[in-house]
Amino acid sequence: MLEGAADLRVVLVSPRNPLNIGAAARAMFNFGFSKLRVVNPYEVAFREARSAVGARELLAEAEEFGSVADAVADCTLVVGTTSLGHRELEHPLRRLEDGAARIREGMKSGPVALLFGSEKFGLSNEDLAHCHWLMRIATADQERSMNLGQAVAVCLYELSRGELEAAGRPRARKAAAAGETEQITNLLLDVLRQSGYVNPVTGTSTENKVRRLVRRLDLTARDAPVVLGMLRQILWKLSETAK
Amino acid sequence: MLEGAADLRVVLVSPRNPLNIGAAARAMFNFGFSKLRVVNPYEVAFREARSAVGARELLAEAEEFGSVADAVADCTLVVGTTSLGHRELEHPLRRLEDGAARIREGMKSGPVALLFGSEKFGLSNEDLAHCHWLMRIATADQERSMNLGQAVAVCLYELSRGELEAAGRPRARKAAAAGETEQITNLLLDVLRQSGYVNPVTGTSTENKVRRLVRRLDLTARDAPVVLGMLRQILWKLSETAK
Repeated sequence: MLEGAADLRVVLVSPRNPLNIGAAARAMFNFGFSKLRVVNPYEVAFREARSAVGARELLAEAEEFGSVADAVADCTLVVGTTSLGHRELEHPLRRLEDGAARIREGMKSGPVALLFGSEKFGLSNEDLAHCHWLMRIATADQERSMNLGQAVAVCLYELSRGELEAAGRPRARKAAAAGETEQITNLLLDVLRQSGYVNPVTGTSTENKVRRLVRRLDLTARDAPVVLGMLRQILWKLSETAK
Repeated sequence: MLEGAADLRVVLVSPRNPLNIGAAARAMFNFGFSKLRVVNPYEVAFREARSAVGARELLAEAEEFGSVADAVADCTLVVGTTSLGHRELEHPLRRLEDGAARIREGMKSGPVALLFGSEKFGLSNEDLAHCHWLMRIATADQERSMNLGQAVAVCLYELSRGELEAAGRPRARKAAAAGETEQITNLLLDVLRQSGYVNPVTGTSTENKVRRLVRRLDLTARDAPVVLGMLRQILWKLSETAK
């Protein structure tokens, strides 16, 4: 889990859709954040979201506020999200990649609020006035905003990017030993000879081609014995039926 | 926009919820991707999603397939997404950060399919057998999966993140198309059956093992016809001598 994750407050301002509130909570849960704050939610939506499955505990503990000012009062850094490029902004506007690094830095010295506006209108100028700076997700078309739940997920992903050390990292794949690879090559050549693919007279250049081909397959130590077994069986069958 | 974004196919396998299909399409639109494919969708959901607002054009052009094999046939790299850490996976499993870089690299040499499973069950072992490798989003709790629309958004965000670094890299080797890889798989299975390696009764799990094995070989577009030729010759010889 991201160190200091408890110091981030995800603040949804005037959310209207219960599914989005639920989605935001689920993304928070996924990335290990827990403090959700909601400002002036559409009450029905908030109630519905709370009763929905998924991230139930997180939603039950969500705090409700009447104003952005109250919701960010205990925070030492307040960051607003925006997807719109055309607004006249008096705030520094940072790309998520850069902004997330600064937020992680900020979380070391105190609680940080990350604000998301309503689905339809985003954050108002009044909301923005509470922010130290703004952050946007670089998208293909800055005029078309992202879905709220997806924007929250992407921001939290970037915040914990590279940090969440989860189990099940890929084991380095162990390559087959050269001896095994050569054994496979020779068996394959035997099979190809028996099948009439390799002409014994002009065979040398084909042999080298096959040798190089087998090396390009880049077999793992685990797969090599399986391939050997297959080739042995095929060769056995070819010899058997040739009798 | 990410260079070569048209070479990515986002493939939703058996999606059940129209909101998720719509959300996936919206995220694609946001990050500049356009090719959506849907395998065996719940029909009502697909219809509803198509009629929903947002990313309408993208959904109208979405292609529908009856099987994963068909949906990825023209792709040279097939990547499955998974959130589960506990499965016994025989595929390399990469974190999104690393996997996205490889996908960007892969997109230079041909179309890439990125598979997302159904909301409830994810990708089946059969679906996974079509994949070259798997990718997961590092989350705080690997047991709890992400919402489909959010997972798509996070993956596409990462794919288009740092796109500038990706420019101007050496051209990668051209990989074999999934259709060819599947053809090789089927020929190899025929050969193995004729040789008595595959027991027709217990054959299904062996089939998936062979399918995964062939994907791990990571054949190039140049080598694939050679391997096909070998297998055809072996199969011909086996059938010939069996007469």
